[in-house]
Amino acid sequence: MTHVPAPVAPPNRILMGPGPSAISPRVLAALAAPTVGHLDPYFLRIMDETQTMLRDVFRTKNPLTMSVSGTGSAGMEACVVNLIEPGDRMVVCVNGVFGGRMADVATRCGAEVTTIERPFGEVFSPEEIAAVVKKVSPKVLGIVHAETSTGALQPLEEVSRIVHDAGALLLVDCVTSLGGLPVEIDAWQIDAAYSGTQKCLSCPPGLAPVTFGPRAIEAIDKRKSKVASWYLDMTMVRNYWSDKSRAYHHTAPINMNYGLHEALRIVLEEGLEARHARHRRNHLALRAGLEAMGVEYAVAESHRLPVLNAVRIPEGVDDKAVRAQLLNEFGIEIGGGLGPLAGKTWRIGLMGEASSRRNVLLFLAALDACLKAQGGRSSAGAGVAAANEVYGDA
Amino acid sequence: MTHVPAPVAPPNRILMGPGPSAISPRVLAALAAPTVGHLDPYFLRIMDETQTMLRDVFRTKNPLTMSVSGTGSAGMEACVVNLIEPGDRMVVCVNGVFGGRMADVATRCGAEVTTIERPFGEVFSPEEIAAVVKKVSPKVLGIVHAETSTGALQPLEEVSRIVHDAGALLLVDCVTSLGGLPVEIDAWQIDAAYSGTQKCLSCPPGLAPVTFGPRAIEAIDKRKSKVASWYLDMTMVRNYWSDKSRAYHHTAPINMNYGLHEALRIVLEEGLEARHARHRRNHLALRAGLEAMGVEYAVAESHRLPVLNAVRIPEGVDDKAVRAQLLNEFGIEIGGGLGPLAGKTWRIGLMGEASSRRNVLLFLAALDACLKAQGGRSSAGAGVAAANEVYGDA
Repeated sequence: MTHVPAPVAPPNRILMGPGPSAISPRVLAALAAPTVGHLDPYFLRIMDETQTMLRDVFRTKNPLTMSVSGTGSAGMEACVVNLIEPGDRMVVCVNGVFGGRMADVATRCGAEVTTIERPFGEVFSPEEIAAVVKKVSPKVLGIVHAETSTGALQPLEEVSRIVHDAGALLLVDCVTSLGGLPVEIDAWQIDAAYSGTQKCLSCPPGLAPVTFGPRAIEAIDKRKSKVASWYLDMTMVRNYWSDKSRAYHHTAPINMNYGLHEALRIVLEEGLEARHARHRRNHLALRAGLEAMGVEYAVAESHRLPVLNAVRIPEGVDDKAVRAQLLNEFGIEIGGGLGPLAGKTWRIGLMGEASSRRNVLLFLAALDACLKAQGGRSSAGAGVAAANEVYGDA
Repeated sequence: MTHVPAPVAPPNRILMGPGPSAISPRVLAALAAPTVGHLDPYFLRIMDETQTMLRDVFRTKNPLTMSVSGTGSAGMEACVVNLIEPGDRMVVCVNGVFGGRMADVATRCGAEVTTIERPFGEVFSPEEIAAVVKKVSPKVLGIVHAETSTGALQPLEEVSRIVHDAGALLLVDCVTSLGGLPVEIDAWQIDAAYSGTQKCLSCPPGLAPVTFGPRAIEAIDKRKSKVASWYLDMTMVRNYWSDKSRAYHHTAPINMNYGLHEALRIVLEEGLEARHARHRRNHLALRAGLEAMGVEYAVAESHRLPVLNAVRIPEGVDDKAVRAQLLNEFGIEIGGGLGPLAGKTWRIGLMGEASSRRNVLLFLAALDACLKAQGGRSSAGAGVAAANEVYGDA
């Protein structure tokens, strides 16, 4: 006799980890709208509108801007496999888990990969980029804009100039930056980029926004070999998304695309500049609060991500016990460290819907209680007071 | 100034095409449940329960039974890339679009592919399979159980014996069969199989149930090369799904997995045998109705899919005009022909929630109106009457 489990009834979490982030009820409601066919004229309109909104959010005119039918890592793989043919040289800049992942993806599809490395939490200088592209003459240089594993923000404008002067294509991971801080695809001349829905766009995980510029399209059109992945092959997928033919490739995840559509509407209603300013303000308030409580950042101030705050776990504090207490007592999820930072850092996300004064204050108050439970001294509200001061009306 | 489009407000379609199929309101509601983190203890429980239910539906004890984070075609690619290393020989049986797709996927990841072909709508005989495995000695033979493009059902039991006698692995496409007709992974000794959520499981598209048996796991464990796709690499994904470590690989599509959980609950509440009988009964009623209206099947009776009825478009009838009228006047989606069958067949799905007496009768009545609009004679209710006779209370 088959045992049928109880229906899904998830707890109501406050998602302040490295993603997924908090989701607007509007987006959840859109997910539950009636499914239509993937060639239904109504869905084709939703695709068109989604493309237009994604272009606004990516700040690009690139026609090939769309959602890949997988999570952010599928977006990474989609960009790499379409740009790379076996034997192509690719430089990947590795200063965290996601740079490392990109190098792995590139190796699997036959690239001759050269990596340059910086310790987790640091970023690359223009000089380092110049040296490696001079030495390698790669077809593609891949770099992560906002390293989700470390909380570090990589400046891109000068990197882009250097990469293009060397005749290479620039591929950028915008998974954690898009919708939370400026991503200027056209102004920075980024050739290809991918993101995820579950970070600053505040849509559940499941889709990966991507965009390909003219030089990337030219490289794809000039390919001599088939793209290594059938599922992610843009030479076919683009005929479904961008073409009058609307040629069937695979069945699009209809309801996930409804959710993304609503999430993008929310982003554009707020406006990108206002949204970036909100992320910055809440970051500064959180920082003031954490510093008042003696919690230090793991990343230098000059390249700290406003949307993902990586802090050092204070001496003598039990990582897992604090995260468990935050989750079980307050329903708050934050992230632990990844790779060499496991057990050493916490990652506190203030992404999209999660970036709010309400969450900043609650988190500081809850963390105070958790640190006290660990035998520390209570900060007696110093964190909350310092944060409120940043908001200017304390 | 950014133009923000109107919110998603899809029409309420009756999905009787080749997928997506009709979705239960229960599944849509589950999609909209609050998102939690991909390492949240609550989500890990949902994953465990989903695996247990998928094993019941696949009729297998395979530990590695889970959902791939992409649509059915991602499930196909996941199976092929994990089983195949460059230079491995693979036989693919092509009698429709999806067999052809599997051959393409296998070629891209370096297989030496041998295809055997049957015309669209036909199936393979055991003798043909025996001859090709004898000639090629493949590592894997891939075959489609229910060809969505043609409506043909491939018997598998004897094929499985022949493939195993030749020392090969059997990979089966169950995209359109799972949840609508018997799929016996263990009894038929299928080594690896994939499906999609949007067919007889009646969940929106976006996930691909897969299962790998002991011989497939052994082949994966013995690989000398990395899996061609990082995103679909089971040697890593299984550590997130099946292992105590729950090692992070990629962020799972949380809400889509909620939807699949509810869809599987509905399947098991009904019971597989009752569900298969329901699909069979509604198919027989539709068939009686269509035949009474002079509409013929495109597939021989002996291997006709009960869940996807491929019929010949009657002489002189405008394919697109009828499908447009069905959609615009009745809100009914059916599918056109794919590949060489484009313009020649309609594909009428009775999958999952869509397989109901209500839909059969409505469709026959609506089709009658559409054929009359094309200058045909009305069947004067003969189709509906013949269908009702099958239901036994007309």
